[in-house]
Amino acid sequence: MKIELENVLPRDIEKRSFEIITEELGDIKLDPEKELIIKRVIHTTADFEYVNNLKFSDNAVEKAMEAIKNGACIVTDTQMAKSGINKKALAKYGGEVFCFMSDEDVAKIAKENGTTRATASMDKASEIDRKLIFAIGNAPTALVRLYELIKEGKINPRLVIGVPVGFVNVVQSKELIMESGVDFIVAKGRKGGSNVAAAICNALLYMINDDRE
Amino acid sequence: MKIELENVLPRDIEKRSFEIITEELGDIKLDPEKELIIKRVIHTTADFEYVNNLKFSDNAVEKAMEAIKNGACIVTDTQMAKSGINKKALAKYGGEVFCFMSDEDVAKIAKENGTTRATASMDKASEIDRKLIFAIGNAPTALVRLYELIKEGKINPRLVIGVPVGFVNVVQSKELIMESGVDFIVAKGRKGGSNVAAAICNALLYMINDDRE
Repeated sequence: MKIELENVLPRDIEKRSFEIITEELGDIKLDPEKELIIKRVIHTTADFEYVNNLKFSDNAVEKAMEAIKNGACIVTDTQMAKSGINKKALAKYGGEVFCFMSDEDVAKIAKENGTTRATASMDKASEIDRKLIFAIGNAPTALVRLYELIKEGKINPRLVIGVPVGFVNVVQSKELIMESGVDFIVAKGRKGGSNVAAAICNALLYMINDDRE
Repeated sequence: MKIELENVLPRDIEKRSFEIITEELGDIKLDPEKELIIKRVIHTTADFEYVNNLKFSDNAVEKAMEAIKNGACIVTDTQMAKSGINKKALAKYGGEVFCFMSDEDVAKIAKENGTTRATASMDKASEIDRKLIFAIGNAPTALVRLYELIKEGKINPRLVIGVPVGFVNVVQSKELIMESGVDFIVAKGRKGGSNVAAAICNALLYMINDDRE
């Protein structure tokens, strides 16, 4: 078998990828507000199921972009998601990315309370006095705790990106967030991941201003 | 609609997830050598397609575990994959994780040569005088360059985890690695990701010795 590589310049690889995604979507028309987010998630996963899985509250994208422009910070539930977010792009508007999962106080409190570290790290996030976007790509327990904190009036996220992946309470935790009353972008069902969470954050950033080198 | 959460203790969530995966695999019998790797990738992606997508060279798992026990290091093509690998577990055997993607010299050489940073970072990796496992979850150009370096006799990886995701040369780059003559674990087709690369590394580590807290 002869393996032939497509000749694409490094700077054109992403553009070409998005062209292929658009071609393969064919007649499927995406809502223009959501289009770049859905396509970036497909770009990150090569999984076209996200066309149907991704659910948005009304005007979630517009409001999230506004929050970022006004200095919103992003809280993740994994170091992987934090790694994947374009922190330089976020910093232009004054925002930064927080992940408390490796913090010693979080580990200690989780152990004392018999919860996950993800739960304890949401409690820690609730003490930050900044505009917050949550990008949850791993732990359904983080989403469940967020739901409780929202209901108790202890936190008021500008957006919850609810895309944990897996088998235990993943589906349910996403349903809770969609009922919580806050703005959301959720991947319904079992699929998602830290990569998906980061891709959605980056899509929002590049929709505001894409001046990557 | 009433949303009911399954009552699972934090320490049992992963175990319960693997039970569900096993249940849903039903009559599908996995090769015992590969079983924990395939299941961990499904655990990370909620995508059962990996049962068929993941391809292994003969005894790849056994040889990779042996290399890790003898101090092999892991080279990734993203900071995300590096983030996701259990570096503490690897350090027990003397190994560490390298990612050169953010290095200034790599950016400079890539620019000069008109290549991707992933290509330049494989060249940099070829100068390391250690046993190496490559965990490539993003850039097909990294796999293509690895193939060339292998063929030129400039590098001799103990294992190449070839799981980039996407649309441009992804399929082809994986085919090249499977023809290169080195040991591989590859996700055939377009799917993969930094999360998948990290999951495979962690599966190898936990197969050697799973004493996570």
